[in-house]
Amino acid sequence: MAGSTDAERRYLEDFAAGDRLDVPGSYEMTPERVREFAAAYDPQAIHLDAEAAAGEFFGRLVASGWHGLAVTARLMVDARPLGDAPLIGAGIENLKFLAPILPGDVLRVEAEVLDTRASRSRPDRGFLRLRLLTRRQDGTPVLTQDWSLLLPTNQQK
Amino acid sequence: MAGSTDAERRYLEDFAAGDRLDVPGSYEMTPERVREFAAAYDPQAIHLDAEAAAGEFFGRLVASGWHGLAVTARLMVDARPLGDAPLIGAGIENLKFLAPILPGDVLRVEAEVLDTRASRSRPDRGFLRLRLLTRRQDGTPVLTQDWSLLLPTNQQK
Repeated sequence: MAGSTDAERRYLEDFAAGDRLDVPGSYEMTPERVREFAAAYDPQAIHLDAEAAAGEFFGRLVASGWHGLAVTARLMVDARPLGDAPLIGAGIENLKFLAPILPGDVLRVEAEVLDTRASRSRPDRGFLRLRLLTRRQDGTPVLTQDWSLLLPTNQQK
Repeated sequence: MAGSTDAERRYLEDFAAGDRLDVPGSYEMTPERVREFAAAYDPQAIHLDAEAAAGEFFGRLVASGWHGLAVTARLMVDARPLGDAPLIGAGIENLKFLAPILPGDVLRVEAEVLDTRASRSRPDRGFLRLRLLTRRQDGTPVLTQDWSLLLPTNQQK
């Protein structure tokens, strides 16, 4: 919300398949943030205990995948693709944890419109499907997912 | 990790379609936790500004859907369905935000095995698919999703 000068709302009709959204932000997965998120929401040794993590699947400390998901949400919220209208998630499909996120990684997000669909029962709203790709600083994709967002149609203008 | 007395690891062959996992914990979405998560990962007015939220889709403050997802992860981690083996997420399908989570709600999770599948390329590992249902205190489902977890097969014993 802070820092925005965009006082407009976007509607379903403002988007078309293939549109790329501008997601300019980045997020550093500092060791402190990795630890804090894991302690609250994913308290496993692979995220919190370097010695134990060395003997597990990744061979070292990694960030929680759910932390990567939360950070992707943060970068999307900051990007304000709907202007002043809220981002309301209806669902997620095709989510894949592609590579581990390591403490110190810096994440960025790319977002492309898959399609739009007006609601059958409520013509004043519809669904915007976005394909998101989260990459770390070297370009490696770490997370992909398709979001379905609920947003108003022009009938609500 | 804390409080567990289970020193065993579970393997892919320990699960079968239809098994229900024991997920005994609950999590209170206190207003402070709702605000703290939203400030960090989903800083939208619908989660942080009661007055502005009253004029938006839900008509009141609601928790971030991504917070509900993180809390579901927490309850699953605490349940230790794999014993001492880590929960490593490979992907998520069919995730739906079914109803808003309100500040003060208490969440619980139900988990059922959909199927198991050994990796084609690596017979020492495989995938466990779980259907999760997160409910609030009155039983209303708020979130459903299918997890695919990566875990070892008996070949790693």
